[in-house]
Amino acid sequence: MIDSTEILRQVNLYLDTHKCQRQPESLYAPVDYTLSMGGKRIRPVLMMLAYNLFGEAPETIIPQAVGLETYHNFTLLHDDLMDNADVRRGKPTVHCRWDANTAILSGDTMLVLAYQRIAEGLSGETLRSVLDLFTETALEIGEGQQMDMDFETRNNVTTDEYIEMIRLKTSVLLACAVNIGAMLAGATPADQKLLYKFGEQLGLAFQLQDDLLDVYGDPAVFGKAIGGDITSNKKTYMLISAYNHADDCQRAELDRWVQATTFDRSEKVRAVTRLYDELGIREICEERIAYYFSQSVNCLNQVSVSDERKVVLRQYVDQLMIREK
Amino acid sequence: MIDSTEILRQVNLYLDTHKCQRQPESLYAPVDYTLSMGGKRIRPVLMMLAYNLFGEAPETIIPQAVGLETYHNFTLLHDDLMDNADVRRGKPTVHCRWDANTAILSGDTMLVLAYQRIAEGLSGETLRSVLDLFTETALEIGEGQQMDMDFETRNNVTTDEYIEMIRLKTSVLLACAVNIGAMLAGATPADQKLLYKFGEQLGLAFQLQDDLLDVYGDPAVFGKAIGGDITSNKKTYMLISAYNHADDCQRAELDRWVQATTFDRSEKVRAVTRLYDELGIREICEERIAYYFSQSVNCLNQVSVSDERKVVLRQYVDQLMIREK
Repeated sequence: MIDSTEILRQVNLYLDTHKCQRQPESLYAPVDYTLSMGGKRIRPVLMMLAYNLFGEAPETIIPQAVGLETYHNFTLLHDDLMDNADVRRGKPTVHCRWDANTAILSGDTMLVLAYQRIAEGLSGETLRSVLDLFTETALEIGEGQQMDMDFETRNNVTTDEYIEMIRLKTSVLLACAVNIGAMLAGATPADQKLLYKFGEQLGLAFQLQDDLLDVYGDPAVFGKAIGGDITSNKKTYMLISAYNHADDCQRAELDRWVQATTFDRSEKVRAVTRLYDELGIREICEERIAYYFSQSVNCLNQVSVSDERKVVLRQYVDQLMIREK
Repeated sequence: MIDSTEILRQVNLYLDTHKCQRQPESLYAPVDYTLSMGGKRIRPVLMMLAYNLFGEAPETIIPQAVGLETYHNFTLLHDDLMDNADVRRGKPTVHCRWDANTAILSGDTMLVLAYQRIAEGLSGETLRSVLDLFTETALEIGEGQQMDMDFETRNNVTTDEYIEMIRLKTSVLLACAVNIGAMLAGATPADQKLLYKFGEQLGLAFQLQDDLLDVYGDPAVFGKAIGGDITSNKKTYMLISAYNHADDCQRAELDRWVQATTFDRSEKVRAVTRLYDELGIREICEERIAYYFSQSVNCLNQVSVSDERKVVLRQYVDQLMIREK
């Protein structure tokens, strides 16, 4: 069986040796730049590990795995432009290194390239099913991103709405990855459905953990500054829960920090974190993460292949969950 | 046989009755807005007329026709954002009516919807071939748009480069439309190839005529102010040809107008038009239009169906060419 390190190597090698040989350079250089930025390649790894539950030679689906990674990187490129983010993985984002128009157009091209790679070499019913799932997923991800933007100007976002937003924006792509992997290996519809749910619940656990680490992570390991969500008043599960559990006095203090137009960044982060501590938000969030993660593992357990075959995938998701702790 | 008026009616009816029933409204309202702006629906009409050369009941391919129209409208939406254009078909563009982020994200969603509609109901080899052609076309159109943007900061664009740019940016989508129409009707590869070339050459004639009308059109019929390309120094076939044919004195005058940072708009349009008149640019351009149009008609003539079946398509393209004269 293949392991995640070997998949990562294969995916990066494929990206390196299958650069788009098209012109003009001004359009494709930002595409190559984005795809060579690295990252954990979680979606390709999940897809190929899911394939490997049922079939041998997961390298046969590298085009599809790289297609999903291309799609994911397209969303990052356009999201960074929409969020006006300057840096991604320690490097200038495309609209900073080039300009906004280049980011729009090379992003559009990456979406088309994603479709090309995802469809590569497929035919018949398989092509039909893979396309349908990918298209539905891509629509949902756009909807999640729009909800995320809409939340910025709303003050009554519920935790359920937040969970639905991250399900759409983040989870369905992990679900799609493992579902396509299983589908291409000829898994039964029942196993595909279990794996979809596995990816979806894993994605929720994963995103909530990312939110948690943004407050309680180790700055040396987290990879970006702690407290970004607090500083920007992002309506995360944690902030919404804090409002839900706060008494009048605590709510007033939260409001004061959220509404402040001028403030000392680290003072705000410290103060809001202290409120979270008082309210036990960390524990509430950790409980929810554990819930989604156990749902996810339950689904994997039910997949009709031997436990032995599940070891690599199981180890990979365990390691993802403890990564930055 | 169906005519273009009936196709236009069917396409608009389909768009009206098949609005995306998805949420959030903030994402899909701009999509519906863009698709209900109207326009001539040239690509769906061409696709269905090409289908009708070979097969009956062209309404069976309305999803594909509307898919290509969805794609076309996606490119207009993002192009308008990149060009910072405020108005399209007499209405505010999406980034003006909403904002830039809405334009980016709803445009991305339209590209996914385009793929969904183009693939709708297809299977097997047909799905494969339609997808391959559409994906290649979408990549080429992005390349054409990038070339167009690159030309803005270049001073040595040749007429050949300009023709290649408009071929990619405009023509290949018309070619793709008629090719898919023929493909779905079961036309032979030879006939598909002829129709592709027919659409490609037609698109060149059509775009050059648009450039010509931007200078010499009747403002009452053209639909936008005359002289826009001259005002913005757009490196059209006409401006490049003017430089190629100008003597030193005329070149100096062109340079003066092109380099002027402050000028009276109508004075500049009048002066450059007078130079075009002196240099016979109108005739040079009209000759080239006639050349591409005759190439296009030649291809249609060679398609292996009776002249009788070609009448409607032929009349439609004739009417497109004389529309604003």
